[in-house]
Amino acid sequence: MTIYQEKSDQAAALLHEFDLDCWLTFARETVVSPDPGVELAIGSNVTWPSAFIYARNGQRVAIVGRYDAPGVEAYGVFPRIVSYDAGIREALIAELTALNPRQIGLNYSKDDKTSDGLTVGMHLMLQDLLRGTPFVERLVSAGPLLSALRSRKTAGEIARIRAAINTTEDIVDLVDREIRIGRSEKDIGDFIHGEFQRRGLPAAWAWDGCPIVNSGPNSAVGHGVPSEHIKIEAGHIVHIDLGVQQDGYCSDIQRLWYVRKPGETEMPAELQRAFDTVRLAIREGAKALRPGTKGYEVDAVARDVIIDAGYDEYMHAFGHGLGKACHDGGPLLGPRWERYGSTPDMKVEVGNIYTLELGVITSAGYIGLEEDVLVTENGVEFLSKEQTSIRMI
Amino acid sequence: MTIYQEKSDQAAALLHEFDLDCWLTFARETVVSPDPGVELAIGSNVTWPSAFIYARNGQRVAIVGRYDAPGVEAYGVFPRIVSYDAGIREALIAELTALNPRQIGLNYSKDDKTSDGLTVGMHLMLQDLLRGTPFVERLVSAGPLLSALRSRKTAGEIARIRAAINTTEDIVDLVDREIRIGRSEKDIGDFIHGEFQRRGLPAAWAWDGCPIVNSGPNSAVGHGVPSEHIKIEAGHIVHIDLGVQQDGYCSDIQRLWYVRKPGETEMPAELQRAFDTVRLAIREGAKALRPGTKGYEVDAVARDVIIDAGYDEYMHAFGHGLGKACHDGGPLLGPRWERYGSTPDMKVEVGNIYTLELGVITSAGYIGLEEDVLVTENGVEFLSKEQTSIRMI
Repeated sequence: MTIYQEKSDQAAALLHEFDLDCWLTFARETVVSPDPGVELAIGSNVTWPSAFIYARNGQRVAIVGRYDAPGVEAYGVFPRIVSYDAGIREALIAELTALNPRQIGLNYSKDDKTSDGLTVGMHLMLQDLLRGTPFVERLVSAGPLLSALRSRKTAGEIARIRAAINTTEDIVDLVDREIRIGRSEKDIGDFIHGEFQRRGLPAAWAWDGCPIVNSGPNSAVGHGVPSEHIKIEAGHIVHIDLGVQQDGYCSDIQRLWYVRKPGETEMPAELQRAFDTVRLAIREGAKALRPGTKGYEVDAVARDVIIDAGYDEYMHAFGHGLGKACHDGGPLLGPRWERYGSTPDMKVEVGNIYTLELGVITSAGYIGLEEDVLVTENGVEFLSKEQTSIRMI
Repeated sequence: MTIYQEKSDQAAALLHEFDLDCWLTFARETVVSPDPGVELAIGSNVTWPSAFIYARNGQRVAIVGRYDAPGVEAYGVFPRIVSYDAGIREALIAELTALNPRQIGLNYSKDDKTSDGLTVGMHLMLQDLLRGTPFVERLVSAGPLLSALRSRKTAGEIARIRAAINTTEDIVDLVDREIRIGRSEKDIGDFIHGEFQRRGLPAAWAWDGCPIVNSGPNSAVGHGVPSEHIKIEAGHIVHIDLGVQQDGYCSDIQRLWYVRKPGETEMPAELQRAFDTVRLAIREGAKALRPGTKGYEVDAVARDVIIDAGYDEYMHAFGHGLGKACHDGGPLLGPRWERYGSTPDMKVEVGNIYTLELGVITSAGYIGLEEDVLVTENGVEFLSKEQTSIRMI
């Protein structure tokens, strides 16, 4: 069974759980406008306006343009494919009339960005197409279904994410030799890009900003680009945030090195204390991460460790979903800030995969760590090999 | 000047032309949800909800999350960047209040898929954020502005597309040696993928379906995947549709070979006539392609050549825009079919770049050609080296 068939079967089951009669992915030019429904459950990209219908009675039908039909057929997800030439209206209304669903769930969500593929233009087009039928009044959000479909990872998805993490850890081991005085952040970034390319793997997020490389106290923390002007010096913390996309699934970890000053044999106390605090926050947060817990509650445990130790709190979420996207959907292990919408109020579920990440600023640079974990019945399994001490150079 | 600065300046001028006080790109997680505003004029990807405002008075301001600010700054498009931590609302309302625009154009369009980046969830979020202000009533579509911005290519864009086409033609020359009896469509596809990878270039559309390779009469024409079962035989037409993405811009051409049967020295008359008709349709269509002509009028000229010669008409558009996307935005050189919306009614403009493509079915396989042209004051300039005869193997 392919991963798309696995996710399609999961979607069919979710229609019952969410009491939804019909899930409709309505998409076009998916290379330009990716849609989570297509990405997760359908596989094939499409060019012309396309409707992918999952009904609660188990029926599935794809209505696609003539030249898109062979591609959709090849993925083996849809037992029935209706193809058209001039326009989709007639076939779409015929299929909906036969199913007569009470609600038709569409791919949009204010809160979960990975459940929000339907564009405003496509929504308007769909309303035009259905004008004069009862279906135009039955359009609702399939956001909750899509969030669950995205965040409850299947066995096939977990295996892929695990493999992506293993590859990333192999690359981190190679980076070890490259952390040398005089090398620029960009040199390190270029080396990592070379390792991505040698393996034919895209970066887990935008190429220019993945990896993030920070050396020493003058490097900008965040989503920037490795600097050619900032060079590794003795006494620098080197911090790298990286991930790959492998078989369509992402990894995302942060790792740390310290470049010793002449004569130094141990980690300076300030840095050791910062690292220990960051580690403790991740461990305590991981302990709080259990099925049924709300995302913001997990974040609060880790955040309190940092604040209690006297450090500035981190201005992001403690953890995000990890999957097809590096910032994947579902619950967010984050504070209840406006910009996170309702995602921190969602409950953690078995099969979710999260990053656990945070850091503090020191006089030698940014001490940030990030691990990847799978939520199980009883707690979490670490998918990444935890960094338990700063690598000394 | 970078291409993003070039497009930003163009956007500022378009606000006057379209009598729009303000253009607002409202986007998040642009790696997951690409937005044409960000792709064209902003450059940097963003993670948190972000507002990019171009005002008719020439002001530009970006409101972005703290960690996204350095990336946006690096592109040098926005002289002023406001960054936030918890939520975007306060800064967004303050900036709009200062500008007090009569209309705020958003990135959506029923017709032009490359002007339709705003998702339904983000539209709802924006309405929530602006609730209680006068601005919520002033939201309109910036679709016409975006279509013009996308389809009127700047000098920098034309140079990039030209370079992508040149690369593709170099690869086509190498393919020549690979067209051999016994090779499968997939072998040819793999060879071309290897050439893409050797140059570090993504395919112009979805990797699995680019190139399209068709050998002989039993191959499925359309957006499919090269078959490992269909092998090149004597008497086959081999048809390849391919393109690359280079420096962010695409090429898209179709080329033809004929594999001679033993003793054959000339092209069979049926195939020669089909090729001549396809060539004539492209040449006549190109002659009709002038600034001010409507897209469907150009399509009709080419379509009539095919129909008048007694062939079945092609079930797609004669030409589409070519740019950042292989199927780029703006006017479509296509028939007025439902699925094309109003794009065939749009007028051709100077600086547009189009594919010109069509084909007919023969007993030896699909004879399809595709050239790329730039619209000038007086007509068109061919950017691809026209294929004037079928390559004989």
